[in-house]
Amino acid sequence: MPGHVDRARAARMMEAAGLDALLVVSPEAFAWATGAPAGVAAGWRRLGAALAVIPADPSLPVGAVASDLFAPAAEAAGCTPLRTHAIWPEALSLRAVMRDDASAAELVAAATAHRPPGFARPATFDREAALAELRALLADQRLDTARLGVELSAVPALDLLALEAAIAPARLTDASALLDRLRSHKSPAEIALLRQAGAITESAFHAFVPAMREGATRAALGRHFLDLVQQHAGAATAPLTAWEYVGFGTSPWSSPGGLQQGDVIKVDVGAVVGGYSADLARTFTLGPAPRLAKEVFAPLLDAFEAGRTLFRPGTALRDIHATCLRIVREAGFPSYARGHFGHGLGASIWSEEWPFTAADSDVVLEPGMVMAFELPWYLDGIGGFIVEDMLLITDHGAETLAGAGLPRGLVEL
Amino acid sequence: MPGHVDRARAARMMEAAGLDALLVVSPEAFAWATGAPAGVAAGWRRLGAALAVIPADPSLPVGAVASDLFAPAAEAAGCTPLRTHAIWPEALSLRAVMRDDASAAELVAAATAHRPPGFARPATFDREAALAELRALLADQRLDTARLGVELSAVPALDLLALEAAIAPARLTDASALLDRLRSHKSPAEIALLRQAGAITESAFHAFVPAMREGATRAALGRHFLDLVQQHAGAATAPLTAWEYVGFGTSPWSSPGGLQQGDVIKVDVGAVVGGYSADLARTFTLGPAPRLAKEVFAPLLDAFEAGRTLFRPGTALRDIHATCLRIVREAGFPSYARGHFGHGLGASIWSEEWPFTAADSDVVLEPGMVMAFELPWYLDGIGGFIVEDMLLITDHGAETLAGAGLPRGLVEL
Repeated sequence: MPGHVDRARAARMMEAAGLDALLVVSPEAFAWATGAPAGVAAGWRRLGAALAVIPADPSLPVGAVASDLFAPAAEAAGCTPLRTHAIWPEALSLRAVMRDDASAAELVAAATAHRPPGFARPATFDREAALAELRALLADQRLDTARLGVELSAVPALDLLALEAAIAPARLTDASALLDRLRSHKSPAEIALLRQAGAITESAFHAFVPAMREGATRAALGRHFLDLVQQHAGAATAPLTAWEYVGFGTSPWSSPGGLQQGDVIKVDVGAVVGGYSADLARTFTLGPAPRLAKEVFAPLLDAFEAGRTLFRPGTALRDIHATCLRIVREAGFPSYARGHFGHGLGASIWSEEWPFTAADSDVVLEPGMVMAFELPWYLDGIGGFIVEDMLLITDHGAETLAGAGLPRGLVEL
Repeated sequence: MPGHVDRARAARMMEAAGLDALLVVSPEAFAWATGAPAGVAAGWRRLGAALAVIPADPSLPVGAVASDLFAPAAEAAGCTPLRTHAIWPEALSLRAVMRDDASAAELVAAATAHRPPGFARPATFDREAALAELRALLADQRLDTARLGVELSAVPALDLLALEAAIAPARLTDASALLDRLRSHKSPAEIALLRQAGAITESAFHAFVPAMREGATRAALGRHFLDLVQQHAGAATAPLTAWEYVGFGTSPWSSPGGLQQGDVIKVDVGAVVGGYSADLARTFTLGPAPRLAKEVFAPLLDAFEAGRTLFRPGTALRDIHATCLRIVREAGFPSYARGHFGHGLGASIWSEEWPFTAADSDVVLEPGMVMAFELPWYLDGIGGFIVEDMLLITDHGAETLAGAGLPRGLVEL
């Protein structure tokens, strides 16, 4: 799979920012830029395990520095030029040298005949070696005196001087916000993954509802949801994982013992396909809803219904935030102060990514954005409450990628 | 639970480095330093969500800046002083104001009576607000002109100038390596968690072996292992998760279709208790082992047996690396070049943490260190091979925390 970069949009944004190229360093953005995994050496989130360079000129391919273990994936994804650095695992392909009568020693010798004398691998990965490859890559790309926009939000301060030295006389400027903005518009392939994640989440959610019975423990419910995701894998075209925040009781956090009559149950879950996460949530009560639970949930649902109609191209996220906040406040809760009512979805370091539906947002919705829209409230003494759908902004409105088939109200089980 | 810091050791290391205190910023090190979770705002790994300050003077408690949502946990863990900043979730405890006849609106009003007028929450978290609390914390701790050792490996470059401005005239110096070294000696509570993780991993591994049957898919095997971990939760005293790298076939990476006769099967897995990860691995073949698999595995096992005897206080990790490398090379594989033969285990950003059993290591084993010891080799065309145990360095040797009851050889199923 090639990367997900809208090269024309990237070119416009780089021109406006006076940049010649973008240097991508976080594992999530590397996968987005190249379509290939950053690989195991990125696990520590230190600089250099995997680096991608997106030239402003859309006719030039995305270049990369990858570990030798993950270089085949980067090559298959079309990264050009591609430079590599050795990491700690001793891995070798014997396929080109296989012979029926050969010993393992002979095969390994044949497959390593090209290795320089004294070849050794670093304890983890060699930042200096990776940065030397970055320097060579920039020269290959004729970007050796360029102005590079880099994700300084993902460069450890401990690695910054080495990065600056490696790329000089090219210069760095922060492009964290530019990359957030560029990545908030999903490619068709990203939308396909998010659509799968949403559909699997909703199917598993439907199947999960009957499990919320008296005596069920939080651990068992959580495990059951994760199992259901795998059972509803269906048409997933990439590796499938999931996360769950299932909780119940009068505390939003502790879920003591087993489910009891009168408990408020918060189910906030997501399937993750190829790193792309869904996000879907509903609130239930076991048996008739307690009076206080109904009083709390009603304005959340009203705010959700009002906010939902605003999800269309041209709406400012801050206006959705203001609308939702106003409705809950005017319903008798003037202190209600939630900071955001949802967030972007994608291949992120965590399940919530920029942009946020918040008072200080300058973002206006555009087609191709995928957003979680949520109205949560955590009240220790009554319970945790939420209603949340997953939305794709379309040309004229928003398509619900998860949640369309689930009642939004406080469901009494 | 209080934190895991050996304050006497920390004091000695700070004195040697000329430091007055350590400033901890990564979510994993915050949990280690305080015994409390860093919380949801740390999900983005930006500076300020959760900060801990460990004074060099061991008689002074660990201070912290925590989000309002996770401040109760930090308070319960004994963080003093404790300062807070507001994050996006609207959460409130009504317990102190509960009355049978009150409406939800009345209860919320009573619980928020102390809020300043115009109280609002940020979209995510407010770095400047958190850093202002850090400044106040340092003043409370009489560290406002101190020399602070900070984890610059976990401070995003984009946040460094704000951090420096917030703490001035106190000064920063990098203490990433010092913290790695300090954290490599586990506290009794950490060892207890790692011991649980190891025992659960080994129990689940035993139960997993019969599932490796002809036709089993990688997805089903992986899911089965994760289920078995939950079924063997036993005496886990903290939240339990798990990870698995199960793979089979002649490629170490692809595990095509279902298990077939003659396949090499690599099982590399870990249960994680309260964030503390085990790591255990064995290699199997379905049916009689192919000749090439036996030729590859034999020297790995020989190296493991020789290396295992060296795990005792006083051994330099580089000597274990040299021994293992020499044995595999002398067995007919002179090109073998694995970068490390294992790593520390703990509450880490990833399953492998410092120190590494590597050629360039200056670490000498000491009692209280917990290490994974592993001999892996990935040979596309034959398969993936590994033997790995989890070890606690004791006063006179090493105790096996995971792997003692599992044959180390290439097991034919």
